[in-house]
Amino acid sequence: MDLSVVKFDEKGLIPAVVQDARTGEVLMLAYMNRESLLRTLSTGRMTYWSRSRGKLWVKGERSGNFQLVREVRVDCDGDALLFKVEQVGAACHTGYRSCFYRKLEGERWKEEGEKLFDPEAVYGEKTS
Amino acid sequence: MDLSVVKFDEKGLIPAVVQDARTGEVLMLAYMNRESLLRTLSTGRMTYWSRSRGKLWVKGERSGNFQLVREVRVDCDGDALLFKVEQVGAACHTGYRSCFYRKLEGERWKEEGEKLFDPEAVYGEKTS
Repeated sequence: MDLSVVKFDEKGLIPAVVQDARTGEVLMLAYMNRESLLRTLSTGRMTYWSRSRGKLWVKGERSGNFQLVREVRVDCDGDALLFKVEQVGAACHTGYRSCFYRKLEGERWKEEGEKLFDPEAVYGEKTS
Repeated sequence: MDLSVVKFDEKGLIPAVVQDARTGEVLMLAYMNRESLLRTLSTGRMTYWSRSRGKLWVKGERSGNFQLVREVRVDCDGDALLFKVEQVGAACHTGYRSCFYRKLEGERWKEEGEKLFDPEAVYGEKTS
């Protein structure tokens, strides 16, 4: 794969926007380093760099909610990626399908949609 | 507006994913600081922080290709925003409707779609 157009930032990261290949819903935004991008492409499963944990992170490795790559795009400046994926279950660790489950209504953020799983049961800890 | 859930990074920025409110197409990813977010909300026109030019940037101010805000979302961690917009013309400075006009096919990036305007005519300089 021609990685020359992909520009990682000063931390070696690039933001990846993840979109449901079927519905077009934007599911999440996460970060990749060079290694996680190469692993994503070779395995077909979305693999990120966890900035908080400082390690590679295969989405779904704990929850089973894998993201299977269907399409890969890069933007004009080469500093953002867009992946269309087949999402198993829910993308968000809170149990919502999309991480963008809070919508601005007037002055307030309102949660929308239903939780597809109980995060405490899946991750064994309180996550939200 | 309750800005307490919005987490700006160490540079005071947050990534904003921009999606066509009608088609669901992801158009671009850009960055906002606190001021550009407040201006976006008060004017209804997407306003970013240009990292390369170091100033506020009303999308469309030169090209006329404004982005009118239709919906605002924040993600679970509060460190990414999603805007659904009505895109006038094309989002990309290259003339493509979306900045994500390059799609990975095998080992190569392939341009897709047609240019909606000639960037040289609009911006008066070569941009790609």
